[in-house]
Amino acid sequence: MYPSDFNSSNSPVPNPTANMTVTLPTPSAIEAAHALIKPYIHDTPLLTNRTLNKLASTPRTPESLKGTPYEGQTPASPNIHFFFKCENYQRIGAFKARGAFHALLRLIEREGEDVVRKRGVVTHSSGNHAQALALAASTLNIPAYIVMPQISTPSKIAGTQSHGAEVIFSGSTSTEREAVVAEVQARTGAILVPPYDDYDIICGQGTTGLEMDEQYRELVAGNPESSVHSEGTQRGAYLDAVITPVGGGGLNGGVTTFFSDKETRVFGAEPSFEGADDCRRGLEAGKRVEVVKSLTIADGLRTPVGVLNWAIISDPNKHSGVYAVTEEQIKAAMRLVLERMKVFVEPSAVVGLAVCLYNEEFRRSVEREAPEGWDVGVVFSGGNTTVEAIGKLFG
Amino acid sequence: MYPSDFNSSNSPVPNPTANMTVTLPTPSAIEAAHALIKPYIHDTPLLTNRTLNKLASTPRTPESLKGTPYEGQTPASPNIHFFFKCENYQRIGAFKARGAFHALLRLIEREGEDVVRKRGVVTHSSGNHAQALALAASTLNIPAYIVMPQISTPSKIAGTQSHGAEVIFSGSTSTEREAVVAEVQARTGAILVPPYDDYDIICGQGTTGLEMDEQYRELVAGNPESSVHSEGTQRGAYLDAVITPVGGGGLNGGVTTFFSDKETRVFGAEPSFEGADDCRRGLEAGKRVEVVKSLTIADGLRTPVGVLNWAIISDPNKHSGVYAVTEEQIKAAMRLVLERMKVFVEPSAVVGLAVCLYNEEFRRSVEREAPEGWDVGVVFSGGNTTVEAIGKLFG
Repeated sequence: MYPSDFNSSNSPVPNPTANMTVTLPTPSAIEAAHALIKPYIHDTPLLTNRTLNKLASTPRTPESLKGTPYEGQTPASPNIHFFFKCENYQRIGAFKARGAFHALLRLIEREGEDVVRKRGVVTHSSGNHAQALALAASTLNIPAYIVMPQISTPSKIAGTQSHGAEVIFSGSTSTEREAVVAEVQARTGAILVPPYDDYDIICGQGTTGLEMDEQYRELVAGNPESSVHSEGTQRGAYLDAVITPVGGGGLNGGVTTFFSDKETRVFGAEPSFEGADDCRRGLEAGKRVEVVKSLTIADGLRTPVGVLNWAIISDPNKHSGVYAVTEEQIKAAMRLVLERMKVFVEPSAVVGLAVCLYNEEFRRSVEREAPEGWDVGVVFSGGNTTVEAIGKLFG
Repeated sequence: MYPSDFNSSNSPVPNPTANMTVTLPTPSAIEAAHALIKPYIHDTPLLTNRTLNKLASTPRTPESLKGTPYEGQTPASPNIHFFFKCENYQRIGAFKARGAFHALLRLIEREGEDVVRKRGVVTHSSGNHAQALALAASTLNIPAYIVMPQISTPSKIAGTQSHGAEVIFSGSTSTEREAVVAEVQARTGAILVPPYDDYDIICGQGTTGLEMDEQYRELVAGNPESSVHSEGTQRGAYLDAVITPVGGGGLNGGVTTFFSDKETRVFGAEPSFEGADDCRRGLEAGKRVEVVKSLTIADGLRTPVGVLNWAIISDPNKHSGVYAVTEEQIKAAMRLVLERMKVFVEPSAVVGLAVCLYNEEFRRSVEREAPEGWDVGVVFSGGNTTVEAIGKLFG
């Protein structure tokens, strides 16, 4: 699935897992992706919020550190100013629309419109990628086949069908799903569009970072009041840091790539529940974790990080580290975003905010590195949940 | 509580209830209020949403009309394009901040800073008005005493206290609450700031309409694509209609006043549950309903419409009518705003949207009056609810 017409600026690097050479995206590939998808996607807002700044810049209570390695120590006292990129307001309610449009537009560039429209595209997903691909395909007049587990929630099946995609059911294991994908391909000739471990998908998701960078600088440059922190110190020209959720890693890999030649550090956030922090554990062990079986409430983050994304995230020249949070911390962050910011998000969307609010290791490093504080861009990755699901979480 | 320094442009009118002359606000009084409060309030967004336009512009199913006066008839087929004024993003999460700041700024103008700061202000409220007055008072350095029923939810008590107000508990009946207010006044000399039936409060809430009018015209004028409807017909210079919730009627009365010399029609929306549609029933009977005892889920709308607001809303030269919706319709509208728009609102906020989506009488009148469709401004009045409350509603 990697493009045959590599950009000359792409430098092949050894794939640390498979011992073969793969091509990783570059910042300029993400700029090109943005130009390509811009007519099809929403320019989502970059929001600030004083209440959350204040909460993040208040030390946690000594009680909340009990039972952690920081018990008995002075809680960290970082200064954090948030800039929330609201991809829950993206088309289909999640950043996945970026990658899906980009993958299909590039496919048409390479294969020609006629070929792609004749063959169609296929993927297996029960989540946001399914709806994103269905929307992009229907917009570009391409047949789409989406393989979904029989046990998917009816609203997600209906959502995918409402964009005109053909939904084909499968069992729930990845073997069962891949078998059905192979059947569809044999029958239709459809081209597979993977959800995250793909050059073009990563470039598409990386455009989230490009927009944050642009919006931040407009905000700071356009407003003298915004050019200083609330404490009076001068803001820089770049966000100090950006943090995004890490599931398969397409979003984090793309955003990391975009900022790899800039001053902004990129971090990842994962749920720790049942080992869903595979990327964090992999970085600790120096080896990608290949299998994850977690039922974390952050259901978009139950997958292991992909091979390409691992190659990006595990490069310390590009990436600054991955931090994990508990289910309770995810719920607490979600409550704050809903009740205080009045912004409707899914649990996966708030793990980055939860790290900033509750991960003592992260908070200590911010305090240590920048006593004057950091401007932190936080990606709210999506908002596709239901009132019933919220009732279950908090009922 | 009416100002002693009436504007010369205010024309005294007979009060239809009390048979005495009261002064009603004028559009210019609302313009003056806006100039006064602008530095203190948020300029909340006016949002559009294609999915909701499409839903509102699709006829209801014949089944949904069963058991209503429209059973067996062809469902109405209006064209509705929404412009949502998001007062859930207002300070303290509701439009009430407008009225509270305006009432206190006018009090200072009339009585002088020293007198107001010495006496302080008092109100009884368990809802958004309590927090709004507490915020405005602390911002303007005025002591605030808030009488709340002992049974108020702890989060609302804490929210009010967090703005520095002194909370004094009372019983739950209005007699008990008013007795405690009188005690506070005797002890402190505090000046009463009523929640809705007050000239200055109405002017403050009316600024919501002023901003909608400005924002709509900027949106349409600034963008050639926006100046035509999706069906290709030309937009006018004004919103065709605005609809807001009606509880005590401060918001609706203020917005009605602002538009009273313009082309925009103003409607009201109420819950029908347990007679909470007192304003609608009053208009039908030609007499204000003075007592309401409803436990509608739209808990901001459980009060009868105030005397001043009734004088405005019952004037057919200013107001175009009040429509009611069921609890199920409010829940359905709330689900759409949360899940589709990703905007966090309280049940009271969506009754106007529910009227546009589900009230067949309203939908027929739109179809009849404007086959080409209406641009309808809908006020989302607030977003102060909790994830637990959502769990209860939809769990």
